[in-house]
Amino acid sequence: MKEILERIVPLDPARVAFYQKKIDQLTKPLGSLGRLEEVASRFAAIRHPSLETDPKALFTFAADHGVSSQGVSPYPAEVTAQMVANFLSGGAAINVLCRHYSIRNIVVDMGVNCEFTPHPMLVRRSLGKGTRCFLDEPAMDRSQAESSLQIGAELALEFASQGYRLLGTGEMGIGNTTASSAVLAALTALPAQELTGSGAGLKPDRIEHKIQVVRRALSRRRPDPLDPVDVLSKVGGFEIGAIAGLCLGGAACGVPVVIDGFISTAGALLAMKLRPAVADYLFFSHCSHELGHRRVLDFLGVRPLLNLDLRLGEGTGAALAIDLISASMKLATQMATFEEAGVSRKDESALPQREGPAKPSPAG
Amino acid sequence: MKEILERIVPLDPARVAFYQKKIDQLTKPLGSLGRLEEVASRFAAIRHPSLETDPKALFTFAADHGVSSQGVSPYPAEVTAQMVANFLSGGAAINVLCRHYSIRNIVVDMGVNCEFTPHPMLVRRSLGKGTRCFLDEPAMDRSQAESSLQIGAELALEFASQGYRLLGTGEMGIGNTTASSAVLAALTALPAQELTGSGAGLKPDRIEHKIQVVRRALSRRRPDPLDPVDVLSKVGGFEIGAIAGLCLGGAACGVPVVIDGFISTAGALLAMKLRPAVADYLFFSHCSHELGHRRVLDFLGVRPLLNLDLRLGEGTGAALAIDLISASMKLATQMATFEEAGVSRKDESALPQREGPAKPSPAG
Repeated sequence: MKEILERIVPLDPARVAFYQKKIDQLTKPLGSLGRLEEVASRFAAIRHPSLETDPKALFTFAADHGVSSQGVSPYPAEVTAQMVANFLSGGAAINVLCRHYSIRNIVVDMGVNCEFTPHPMLVRRSLGKGTRCFLDEPAMDRSQAESSLQIGAELALEFASQGYRLLGTGEMGIGNTTASSAVLAALTALPAQELTGSGAGLKPDRIEHKIQVVRRALSRRRPDPLDPVDVLSKVGGFEIGAIAGLCLGGAACGVPVVIDGFISTAGALLAMKLRPAVADYLFFSHCSHELGHRRVLDFLGVRPLLNLDLRLGEGTGAALAIDLISASMKLATQMATFEEAGVSRKDESALPQREGPAKPSPAG
Repeated sequence: MKEILERIVPLDPARVAFYQKKIDQLTKPLGSLGRLEEVASRFAAIRHPSLETDPKALFTFAADHGVSSQGVSPYPAEVTAQMVANFLSGGAAINVLCRHYSIRNIVVDMGVNCEFTPHPMLVRRSLGKGTRCFLDEPAMDRSQAESSLQIGAELALEFASQGYRLLGTGEMGIGNTTASSAVLAALTALPAQELTGSGAGLKPDRIEHKIQVVRRALSRRRPDPLDPVDVLSKVGGFEIGAIAGLCLGGAACGVPVVIDGFISTAGALLAMKLRPAVADYLFFSHCSHELGHRRVLDFLGVRPLLNLDLRLGEGTGAALAIDLISASMKLATQMATFEEAGVSRKDESALPQREGPAKPSPAG
């Protein structure tokens, strides 16, 4: 992992500015494609000089959570395995979106309490039958936390070497909003009640209980905020570690990674704590309806692309944003310039000067 | 037009609720697809029982504006015709997005100061070489305003009869944010300075001048807010009337219409003033970066789907939202139900009751 971390270098702002300048030549008022220009110039800077976005892959990392025994989700733990089966038969939301947007969907068993038979969509990297309940003991061993990071990173490297140009994150795991709230609270020092919401639909009167579970986990496990692997091992989850690893692996080989919702953001933040420069390679897809996601995004200073009140996970928000990135790159590469189209430029005396190129940020 | 208006009837909220209930059976937490569920249930209710979204068409209505002589745009008036030529050769942003999303793009000459040769993408319905400058005289005759509505409505009827299932609006016309600000100020009674922005990139010190132009137009022309055709004829534009007509024609034959940005919203509001029930058939695609768009959307009580700081027009925001509607309908029709997939339902004792079905609204 050390070698992977060292390969991640900050994106050159001059390269982002170079592509923004190219976009400024296209037949449209300066800046009028808004966020899509920001996305396209950063994607292009990362992938320079190849500007294709295809092929694209989205990883739905699945794992079980010991904390699901604590009444933190309205769904029973076996739903994790049942939903993995649903993914493999193509009936889940993420399947529909990946088909619609021509994204290859990979389901990764990071530690589901079930023996799956081989399937072309399934990658088996199970680290166990689920984490332990972090109210009683650390969710996993430190070596398992390191393995989860390594697995995610290696998948990114493998897909990059196969020519994939854009990766996305997603997850499935009953109990994993609770683990994510604990990870995020440990890493940001924001109060648990600001980061803990209804997850898959917990009744309001149970949310207070869920907040107590997060608080108790933090006080009993005392994860070290300066040691992200300690946080992951004590209160995290196998799929959260794999998401962090995917971010790191993607950035190490110059492949952008699109972050799904609340749980994926916990993984992304772990990655950013391990290597801050990873942020330049991440695109935050959407702000989830899950309480706490907006809070964390604001804390990170990122502005996601979409606000559709999604709170499903699986990678659904990432799939939508992946297609926005594809569309933005088609705009950047297929539109005519003013010169090519013979369209008059605006009266330069009326032209407001573009402000200096912003430093690349993980906002969208 | 009277007959078309009378054919527009409010959407039955029970039918929206029927489709929401079907969506509630799908393998995902209740409501977790957020805005996409709202979109899908309303689209399905409009199109019942046929749930396809293809084929789709987007109309880019182009026209010139006499008010462009008043220094209200940084671009010269001839850019309208130049951009129409750019549309026809496939080099504009709207071309790229319509190709990406498999949307048929139609360019309608509603009154551009240019003679275009026939082209398969071009529909010629010119009402003149542009409007008159509404500082000096009414922008158009009342009969021209009526014709512009009729043209838009007839295009919707024609495409509906050809089997098109989803329509979108767009426009091109140097000077048309000024006309739209005037139309919106007349219809909403909101102050001109809250509705007048930089358009295609006017320098801040010129915006005050543009506000004065809008104010002067309103005080000199005195459009009657209770007579939308009077407002359109005195301070509107040919393409704005056609957009209003497209909304009305679409609604009359049960085909949803996706509204692009600021200028299209002026057209949509004209349609809503002519027949309030049209709102049930409209999907507002995005909130433009143009000052005043947010203000008007709030005034109308609608929440658009996207916030990408777009301010390009042409139909670019509508194209993006059309694809979100297609994706939402694929989710609604292709996802497995809990029963089909053998996924356990949530513990009903922990289930928060869904609030009663909201009345259909034009919010996205």
